[in-house]
Order: sequence, then C-alpha cells, then structure tokens
Amino acid sequence: MPPLQQHIKKYISINEEELSAVLNFFHPLQLKKKQNLLTEGKICRANYFVMKGCLRLFFINDKGVEQTIQFAIENWWIADYTSFEKQEPATFYIQAVEKSEVLALPFINQEEMLQKFPQMERYFRLMHLRANAASQFRIRSLYSLSGEERYHQFNERYPEFVQRIPQYLLASFLGFTPEYLSEIRSKKFS
Amino acid sequence: MPPLQQHIKKYISINEEELSAVLNFFHPLQLKKKQNLLTEGKICRANYFVMKGCLRLFFINDKGVEQTIQFAIENWWIADYTSFEKQEPATFYIQAVEKSEVLALPFINQEEMLQKFPQMERYFRLMHLRANAASQFRIRSLYSLSGEERYHQFNERYPEFVQRIPQYLLASFLGFTPEYLSEIRSKKFS
Repeated sequence: MPPLQQHIKKYISINEEELSAVLNFFHPLQLKKKQNLLTEGKICRANYFVMKGCLRLFFINDKGVEQTIQFAIENWWIADYTSFEKQEPATFYIQAVEKSEVLALPFINQEEMLQKFPQMERYFRLMHLRANAASQFRIRSLYSLSGEERYHQFNERYPEFVQRIPQYLLASFLGFTPEYLSEIRSKKFS
Repeated sequence: MPPLQQHIKKYISINEEELSAVLNFFHPLQLKKKQNLLTEGKICRANYFVMKGCLRLFFINDKGVEQTIQFAIENWWIADYTSFEKQEPATFYIQAVEKSEVLALPFINQEEMLQKFPQMERYFRLMHLRANAASQFRIRSLYSLSGEERYHQFNERYPEFVQRIPQYLLASFLGFTPEYLSEIRSKKFS
C-alpha cells in the first residue's frame, strides 16, 4: 500500500473506498534536488506529504543567509502554515534537499475533501497536535541547550535525518557554522 | 454567551443542543495566583481553555531557573501536548500567572466527546493548526532576532500580554534578564 494510505490508516478508521476517494484530492509532484516548492511572497497553496526524499523549510535572514528551521522526510507533512491557513503570501521557502516525490493537497481540495470525508479532520488534528507537541520540545531546546547539546539531541531523536542531510544544512538548522559541526563530530570520534 | 461556546461557534457549525452537550465534558477550575495546574513528572491529564486570567508553561533549566516558553490568556488553550497526547509524564509546568478560571478537558473526556460529536475534530484541528503556524513564526524569531527585536515584535503582536505579564516573566520568556528588559523599555521612552 502506498505510504499516504498506510499513514492515514495508522491514525483513523476509514474504508478502502473512502480512502481511494480521499486520495483523488491529492496531486503527485516530482521534485529535482534543490527545486523550490514555495518561495517567499507566494501563497502556500498546498500542504505537502513526503512520499520519498527530503524537503526543508527555510527563510532568508537579514544577512542574506538561508536559515533552515524544519526538515521533512518520508511520512512527514510540510507547509508554511500561516500562509496555507490564511492563503496569504508566505514568509518561508520550501525546497527539495534531494530528489523527492510529494503528494500536494491544495487548500481548496482540502476544504472539499473535509466536507465529504469529515473523518479526515481527525487525521489532520492528530498531525497538527504532534507538530505542536514537537514545537514545544523544540522551543525548549532552543532556550536551554548549547549548539553542541542540540546536535547530540537531534542525533539521538532523528538518526535517520543526520545520515542523509548535507552538513551545511544540518549546521544551519542547529544554528551554527559547518566548521563547528565538523569540530563536534571529530570530538566524538577522537 | 460564555467564552468557550463563543469560541467554538466562531470556528465550526454546531447547534445549541450539541454545544451544551459538548460543554458537559469540561470541568471548571478556579486557580489562585501562582497555583500549579501541572508539575514536571505528573501526567498532563487535560487540555485547558482559559476563560479568565493568564497561565504560563515553563520548565526548570539546568541552573534551577524557571524558563517560561508560553503564555495563555482568555480564549487560548494550553497543555504539555506531548504529555497530553501520550498520557505520559510531563516535562513542563503549567502555572497561573494571576487569579484565573479555566475549563479543563480531560483526555478521556476528549476522546468520548470526539466520538459523540465528531464535528469537534475540526475545532481542535484548527486550534492545533494555529498553534503550529505560530510556532513556525516563533522558531524563526528565536533564530533571527536579537532579544531587543523579540521584545518589540512581541509588543506589536501581543500588546495585551505585555500590559499584564510581570516584568520578570516577560524577560524570561524573551530569553533575557529583567534588568535588560528595563533597559530596553527606558530606551524606548527616552
């Protein structure tokens, strides 16, 4: 069974017929490495489910430097949720870190789907609840941990990310330079 | 109409009879100033809607200092969402900043309510979506703004909070000392 169907069935009760009707509201997209799904100033028209590959959410800071704040690999959702909810211009970019396949759920499709299949409200409630829980944990780390501690925590919680994300993006996400990341890593193995 | 009923009707379609049945799943609680609703290590049994007053979510850092990461005033929800979702020990505290009245929705009541009134899934989906959107914005600020810039941003977005929250808690939330907060404020008026 394809990943999204599996994922939905993990969280809610839904029969095969309904599930296949739900899937009709999604569009598959193929992304090349470094292809942008969203750029700042455009409206985030869809919520994206990653079937294969890895995406990141970032913004460009005052110094013109890209700052990654979120990654999404298989079975994760990603969007600029302020832009998506209000259908107003985005303040973030979304880009493929590697060659990726996603399922896009456009905002208008979502609204129609939720009217026809209200049981999907529960699925998305649980997705947002988990993201909300993860953010509380994340904000706590930003307040209380040093860069090095954040690296070790991320390594423990998400070893599958650390393996596949380019060093310079991981360093940006953790809030320090790639040189500092090499330093931490070499310390670990010395 | 009481605040929670108003709030629910703002987001979903629900008739008076259903609404009053939904309200039966909540328990009202009166909190004294500085009373704890949740302490670290206990299970966060409920999700809390603030009817009157102000609550805060905080943790105690390595140095034994309380670090506030979230405030909730009237019409906001607050919980340790990892603890609430998994019904496992909390890593945060929740405390009343001032004398407060909240409506508690215990986890088991929530599950029963959502079975009987599945339209409430939508309401909570929208609450978590908004919290999720706010967290993306918040994490961005933590990466890109100085303490002083965060103060000004918070002041613009949430003037009603800045008026009523004690200085030392606001400073903790913004990630600096009360002395630095006084400095920023006096700069503004000089």
